[in-house]
Amino acid sequence: MAPLTAQEISQHNSAKSCWVIIQNRVYDVTDFLPAHPGGSKIILKYAGKDATEAYEPIHPKGTLEEHLPKDKHLGPLAAQDITEKKERPKTKDELRVEREQRMKPPISRMLSIRDLEGVARKVLSFKALSYYASAGDDEVTATQNERAYSRFFFAPRVLRKISTVDLTTKILGYDSPLPIFVSAAALAKLGHPLGEINIVRGAGRTGIIQMVSTNASCSITEMSEAKLHLNQVQFFQLYKNRDTSIAEALIRKVESLGYKAIFLTVDAPVAGNRERDIRVPFAEEDEHRAEGEGESGTTGEKPRRSGAEEEEEEEGSNEVGGTAGALLKNDDLNITWEETIPWLRRITKLPIVLKGIQSVADAVLAADAGVDGILISNHGGRQLDYSMPTIEVLYRLRQQRPDCFDKMEVFVDGGIRRGTDVLKALCLGAKAVGMGRPFLYAQSAYGEAGVIKLIRIMERELLTGMRLLGATKYSELKPEMVERVDFEARL
Amino acid sequence: MAPLTAQEISQHNSAKSCWVIIQNRVYDVTDFLPAHPGGSKIILKYAGKDATEAYEPIHPKGTLEEHLPKDKHLGPLAAQDITEKKERPKTKDELRVEREQRMKPPISRMLSIRDLEGVARKVLSFKALSYYASAGDDEVTATQNERAYSRFFFAPRVLRKISTVDLTTKILGYDSPLPIFVSAAALAKLGHPLGEINIVRGAGRTGIIQMVSTNASCSITEMSEAKLHLNQVQFFQLYKNRDTSIAEALIRKVESLGYKAIFLTVDAPVAGNRERDIRVPFAEEDEHRAEGEGESGTTGEKPRRSGAEEEEEEEGSNEVGGTAGALLKNDDLNITWEETIPWLRRITKLPIVLKGIQSVADAVLAADAGVDGILISNHGGRQLDYSMPTIEVLYRLRQQRPDCFDKMEVFVDGGIRRGTDVLKALCLGAKAVGMGRPFLYAQSAYGEAGVIKLIRIMERELLTGMRLLGATKYSELKPEMVERVDFEARL
Amino acid sequence: MAPLTAQEISQHNSAKSCWVIIQNRVYDVTDFLPAHPGGSKIILKYAGKDATEAYEPIHPKGTLEEHLPKDKHLGPLAAQDITEKKERPKTKDELRVEREQRMKPPISRMLSIRDLEGVARKVLSFKALSYYASAGDDEVTATQNERAYSRFFFAPRVLRKISTVDLTTKILGYDSPLPIFVSAAALAKLGHPLGEINIVRGAGRTGIIQMVSTNASCSITEMSEAKLHLNQVQFFQLYKNRDTSIAEALIRKVESLGYKAIFLTVDAPVAGNRERDIRVPFAEEDEHRAEGEGESGTTGEKPRRSGAEEEEEEEGSNEVGGTAGALLKNDDLNITWEETIPWLRRITKLPIVLKGIQSVADAVLAADAGVDGILISNHGGRQLDYSMPTIEVLYRLRQQRPDCFDKMEVFVDGGIRRGTDVLKALCLGAKAVGMGRPFLYAQSAYGEAGVIKLIRIMERELLTGMRLLGATKYSELKPEMVERVDFEARL
Amino acid sequence: MAPLTAQEISQHNSAKSCWVIIQNRVYDVTDFLPAHPGGSKIILKYAGKDATEAYEPIHPKGTLEEHLPKDKHLGPLAAQDITEKKERPKTKDELRVEREQRMKPPISRMLSIRDLEGVARKVLSFKALSYYASAGDDEVTATQNERAYSRFFFAPRVLRKISTVDLTTKILGYDSPLPIFVSAAALAKLGHPLGEINIVRGAGRTGIIQMVSTNASCSITEMSEAKLHLNQVQFFQLYKNRDTSIAEALIRKVESLGYKAIFLTVDAPVAGNRERDIRVPFAEEDEHRAEGEGESGTTGEKPRRSGAEEEEEEEGSNEVGGTAGALLKNDDLNITWEETIPWLRRITKLPIVLKGIQSVADAVLAADAGVDGILISNHGGRQLDYSMPTIEVLYRLRQQRPDCFDKMEVFVDGGIRRGTDVLKALCLGAKAVGMGRPFLYAQSAYGEAGVIKLIRIMERELLTGMRLLGATKYSELKPEMVERVDFEARL
Repeated sequence: MAPLTAQEISQHNSAKSCWVIIQNRVYDVTDFLPAHPGGSKIILKYAGKDATEAYEPIHPKGTLEEHLPKDKHLGPLAAQDITEKKERPKTKDELRVEREQRMKPPISRMLSIRDLEGVARKVLSFKALSYYASAGDDEVTATQNERAYSRFFFAPRVLRKISTVDLTTKILGYDSPLPIFVSAAALAKLGHPLGEINIVRGAGRTGIIQMVSTNASCSITEMSEAKLHLNQVQFFQLYKNRDTSIAEALIRKVESLGYKAIFLTVDAPVAGNRERDIRVPFAEEDEHRAEGEGESGTTGEKPRRSGAEEEEEEEGSNEVGGTAGALLKNDDLNITWEETIPWLRRITKLPIVLKGIQSVADAVLAADAGVDGILISNHGGRQLDYSMPTIEVLYRLRQQRPDCFDKMEVFVDGGIRRGTDVLKALCLGAKAVGMGRPFLYAQSAYGEAGVIKLIRIMERELLTGMRLLGATKYSELKPEMVERVDFEARL
Repeated sequence: MAPLTAQEISQHNSAKSCWVIIQNRVYDVTDFLPAHPGGSKIILKYAGKDATEAYEPIHPKGTLEEHLPKDKHLGPLAAQDITEKKERPKTKDELRVEREQRMKPPISRMLSIRDLEGVARKVLSFKALSYYASAGDDEVTATQNERAYSRFFFAPRVLRKISTVDLTTKILGYDSPLPIFVSAAALAKLGHPLGEINIVRGAGRTGIIQMVSTNASCSITEMSEAKLHLNQVQFFQLYKNRDTSIAEALIRKVESLGYKAIFLTVDAPVAGNRERDIRVPFAEEDEHRAEGEGESGTTGEKPRRSGAEEEEEEEGSNEVGGTAGALLKNDDLNITWEETIPWLRRITKLPIVLKGIQSVADAVLAADAGVDGILISNHGGRQLDYSMPTIEVLYRLRQQRPDCFDKMEVFVDGGIRRGTDVLKALCLGAKAVGMGRPFLYAQSAYGEAGVIKLIRIMERELLTGMRLLGATKYSELKPEMVERVDFEARL
Repeated sequence: MAPLTAQEISQHNSAKSCWVIIQNRVYDVTDFLPAHPGGSKIILKYAGKDATEAYEPIHPKGTLEEHLPKDKHLGPLAAQDITEKKERPKTKDELRVEREQRMKPPISRMLSIRDLEGVARKVLSFKALSYYASAGDDEVTATQNERAYSRFFFAPRVLRKISTVDLTTKILGYDSPLPIFVSAAALAKLGHPLGEINIVRGAGRTGIIQMVSTNASCSITEMSEAKLHLNQVQFFQLYKNRDTSIAEALIRKVESLGYKAIFLTVDAPVAGNRERDIRVPFAEEDEHRAEGEGESGTTGEKPRRSGAEEEEEEEGSNEVGGTAGALLKNDDLNITWEETIPWLRRITKLPIVLKGIQSVADAVLAADAGVDGILISNHGGRQLDYSMPTIEVLYRLRQQRPDCFDKMEVFVDGGIRRGTDVLKALCLGAKAVGMGRPFLYAQSAYGEAGVIKLIRIMERELLTGMRLLGATKYSELKPEMVERVDFEARL
Repeated sequence: MAPLTAQEISQHNSAKSCWVIIQNRVYDVTDFLPAHPGGSKIILKYAGKDATEAYEPIHPKGTLEEHLPKDKHLGPLAAQDITEKKERPKTKDELRVEREQRMKPPISRMLSIRDLEGVARKVLSFKALSYYASAGDDEVTATQNERAYSRFFFAPRVLRKISTVDLTTKILGYDSPLPIFVSAAALAKLGHPLGEINIVRGAGRTGIIQMVSTNASCSITEMSEAKLHLNQVQFFQLYKNRDTSIAEALIRKVESLGYKAIFLTVDAPVAGNRERDIRVPFAEEDEHRAEGEGESGTTGEKPRRSGAEEEEEEEGSNEVGGTAGALLKNDDLNITWEETIPWLRRITKLPIVLKGIQSVADAVLAADAGVDGILISNHGGRQLDYSMPTIEVLYRLRQQRPDCFDKMEVFVDGGIRRGTDVLKALCLGAKAVGMGRPFLYAQSAYGEAGVIKLIRIMERELLTGMRLLGATKYSELKPEMVERVDFEARL
């Protein structure tokens, strides 16, 4: 195909004819606009222009190839137009990130999970941090997931032989060096060019099990192929497509790629209201406007728009976007205990875990439904705000229905930042815990090495914690070794 | 009538002869002084001068016409004096408001009720904000009304069909698209020239029911006439006049105007101690003084008054003013269960709701009295400080006397800012919730469009919240889906 | 007697011969040094010099005359030395106070007790504020006395006739316009030249009962004589002298002066550890040193003293001073249930109230001992830190031993700042409440007018509070109208 | 031996041949490197150089002599090299400390334990403060140890004879003037050149019993010999060596030195994760780097190291250092109820106290094991973070197993800062309390005089506290005189 010039491409800048450049290749996406999970608006922003920067960090490799017919691949960008693209001046945020990257401390100084998060918060772009950190509404559940652990104190036991401690466990029958797995978290490429591959490799190096997300910025094939050795175990987080045949096909593919368990997402039939994430474009617009003003020499205060224009706009729809809305657009809103669990059981022999149980009542239903496990989770607080913090749900389950722990494996995620947090969850009956954001932050800060560092920190803290609790294996951790107190430990 | 000159008018500047100019017309209010609900002092401040600016935002159209005999309408202001009035230099606060109005963000960026409040707090005049935000004593109940919701967490249910959610409900038998109505709030014109009309129109556009206040800055006739269509439902908030025949006449008028229910105010026989509002004149005096000093060239510190003069003044009365005191001046302090409820039942067939129930004991009395509903309310914390936050009262009523919910409709207002707040109240048995200040803020910030925006935000949050709770209709919301926790979620 | 010159007096500047000038008269206090309740050290600081400024605000008129033999009154100061005394340059703190006095707001702007305190905190000298505000150790009980009220919320009742409210009550059989009395507080002259006389007059003007302190800066005779009318009621706060005959003589005098009840102080056999007060001299020393340096032209950092000198000094005693230690020096450390109460009952017919009950157990003992009342008080938190806040003690007494309220009158003080605080205490069974610091602050800020203002504010708040609670007399206030909540209302 | 020149010594700067200079004497520590409890790395930092400053404050006198064969003592440093050493420019932190030392307040102004800590925090080096203040993980338990006391309030008793109060008690049968002993705390020389000797002397002067630490910076012989009189009582804190014969030899030595009891450490088989301490070298490195940059004239931002180099380093071990890790390196990880207690009982007749009991369950085991006492302690929060605050453990023991207090003496340490804290512990059944950090701070601030001051402050506060509680001897302190409240007293 003949190269296309930027000049020519720029003509196709509307919904009637919409071309975009991605990695110096030109695509006609006109017909695809209505089908785009993220909506047509975001594509039209780049109609007739280069969309690479926006496209890359949130689409797994091969996404375009898979979804766009061959005849819409229009050919390469003309050579003379390729270099110019690089001339775009860096934004203030990009300059800030570069500066922070230069100044970040050596990884050897990372002593805790919060250290890693601290570095990530500096080196992440405003947009990436907003996506990672955002949570539902006022982010109360997200904050409380973490703080809730500070209401559980230990009654440590002494004068026990603790020279030899066994930190290993089994998760759904698979060996794990620690009672920790990677809980699925999407869009790792926003934080680091290699994205989820960093986590696959770091997990492989340390033997940790990773649950990968349907919404990863790497494809599930890429993540499977990136495994370091044959025995490396990966689980799959399923967002069930509203089209059951597509869902079934996905499970077949997942099985063929060697994933060892299905974590069915039950807490995200629709996206939570993540305002921090939704606000990102506002800040970007303001920066553009500020720059525009700077160029034209205007100073001082300037009205944004006339009120009339403003109130006119109000006539529009009541939808808000955000990254999450786009990702979940095709999900099934009608998954049920009666239909979805039996269907899933029927079509796969893989262990089934329900990800997103938030109440004792549903934990009981899950045990009755015969699933292999539940992950007590509220999606990191990203769905319904004021969902009870996960460790509190685990605590109530232990108190009210201890029988559930015998019928299935119980996992918990959300807010785990210390070895002691893990030990609290294990005392209360959890088989293992998932960590999500911490892995995103670790790989954003230091790539694969950050992932390994995170695991080494947790390993060290778990070893010390077990010894100081007087325990040498997890079966010695008992509910009576933690007490929920009535005061706020961190004010 | 012959035009009157400013010079002539200015002679009538005392209690002996008191003329005022309002909208370029001259009135003799000498005989009216003692009868003015807001006291004579505030009128005498404008004796012989133009009182339009002070009069307009707090008096419904037609107030003067209704209360002042025709012969006291002295005629138009002389033409040559009309223009001069506009020369008054703007106050610092007016200049600030103009600047904020120019800089306010586009309404499309309003994601939450707090966003709307945030804009309103900037564009409102100091006086208006003080009136809207003020509450009793130390404003503890006002603050706690809102914060109390943060002690209620959800136990969301999963794996339920939630594609179709019914957000509609019935309020006193009338259809409502959402379980939300506008709770009466006075003096909307302080925040926007159109005042309550913005709310009438916004409610009409969205189908929301509005309870209008006796103390609105628009007359109940204006508000009734502003309805957008015949089916638009309005309720009436009654402050019973101490003169029962006046009260009865008002109800007749209310009925004839088509109002569909009477919300009898029971928590405000006298005004609460709203210090923030009462302090407004102090700040105004200080500004005048500061300006005066500026003109005379004085700088530095200057004593306010001599101590002697000061202590002399103390001999005065023990009354404090504030806007609320004026508004309630003619209210009946002796409304009772034994007399008032039967009287009201006797003279009207409209549904009767008691607005301002603050205890379980009174809720039980209300159920026994056979009213159609109660509104658990403490007047937005504007009456007795340390009145229990309303959601806590609802919670206690649900725990102690669940039978009450079968005998009448239970509503709650105060502190609702999120869709999840509404859902918490509904889980605990509320039929619907009222919102007051948020509508005042919304119309102050963006007029009618702000009102519509508020409703759209609540609608979106309710839809998401219902789905993430696993509920498709309100009857599925149960007390066991919320738990009152023993920690402070927002610190 | 011949006038004495400053030059001559200055020779007598040691413990061997110690003369001081007070109000231009010269006294030989050499023999009195060991007997001075405040210790000899403080007198020796002024040996050979003018001590008027230190003496006046903390000694009632006539103290010297009463304690010093006539022959030690050496005569007047020589005329030529009188004027010079006034030349002393004002300290920074005095200049600050003068400035604040000029700038203080008019009393008409005082809307709340905290407003009055706010002004007082500005116009009080550093030393006076330190004495008034200081409390035991970390001042936790002092702070909690006030904050504890914020954990009690109301269940207000509605639809009751509240046009007529009776705010009057009887305290130990004496009429009071409000259920409030002045709780004894010492050294009012530190805050205002007229000292306690302001309170006597303000109480007289409003009909409020005042409990006067043995440690007042006015004598009990002065305070009795300052009464405005024959029916003005005063109570007497007794610190029992270790010499019972002195104590008995004092009671005889109290009776003869017409005091109507004895409040026996039981919580202050020794002084609490009031560090804020004890530190006052440190700040004064530092200011003197700073001024000295300024004069000698030194700048920059300068060591205070050599370490050796410092550690030498450590060999001294383990006593710390503070104003309180001095005031209590002659008090009886061995007052008991078995001896003191019967003794007191024997020698006087006046009603006896125990001031400083801090536990349910002692309240029960008091009821059994047949006293007329108890004042639940921890001395404003000035004695044992972490003594339970008084409203909490009252609450426990009501819950555990409601019978006590039938056997005697129960009063409470400490932390009352609002009419609602009073009403909470009354709901829980208190007959009336005492207020101490607020009166000190009020008279410091505005003299007698401040005292009256305070009472008018409380009256207004009580009237509004009663009405909004739905009560017209105190017997309608019930324990079930307040609820102790488990959250912090003021954060 | 012939003097050695700095030039010659500097050749031996690696693990192959490692010489160091200490107090102007040269040692060959090559063979000792692997045996050093603190690891070889810290020694190699000084290979070929002077290590005196790093060595002295953390090694008791005679350590080198004891552990290094005579033939490795290579001789004196050449005279011409001795003076130069002193030329090292002072670090910023040293200059800061000198300045603070000059400016510190006279000891007579120290009114409370927190005053002493306040001075110490200023005059301590960054490194010393970091070691003293550091605690496990997020230091929650360390903070809560102290704050937990603020949840216990008193019910003081009145009308009791309190002129004579007996503050003395017996601890393990030995007379003590106060119910307070010095709880072992290591490395006092970091804060003051005389180190633990200050505490020995101050304790001797006041009669207080001191528990000395195996890890003191003075040897146990030095501390024993520093006693002021024959009757001065010292206890010994034992960290059991993993080599039982070494442990036994140590106990023999302890007995021969006259120590009166063995406090067996049971809460520190391995070191806690004290990040604040571990981070000290990072700050030191940064200062060196900053100084280097300053010299070479570079300004502005400079990358620390290349990322590659960084990630390479990650390949290292998962150990973190910190002072604590070194100190505990040879401790026995396998001490048990079954073996260690009987062994200890067998080899010594001294009273045995278990130091570090953190649960009711272990307190019960201790009582059953027949030890003479337990010290409820979590090592000042330096071991397992989120170990329950010690006063809370004592409170639970009193509530759940009051019988334990009859079987053995119960002590508590951690967070004691006020006389009232001691009295709370005694009310709950403690025989006496230990104080650790406060003594380190006191001696750092003012040496021996600081230690004495601390005790005098506690004595005064205890005397006042007893009187204001209405108690004259400790047997009158009862559990019902303290109440655990549900609110936070200090916010």
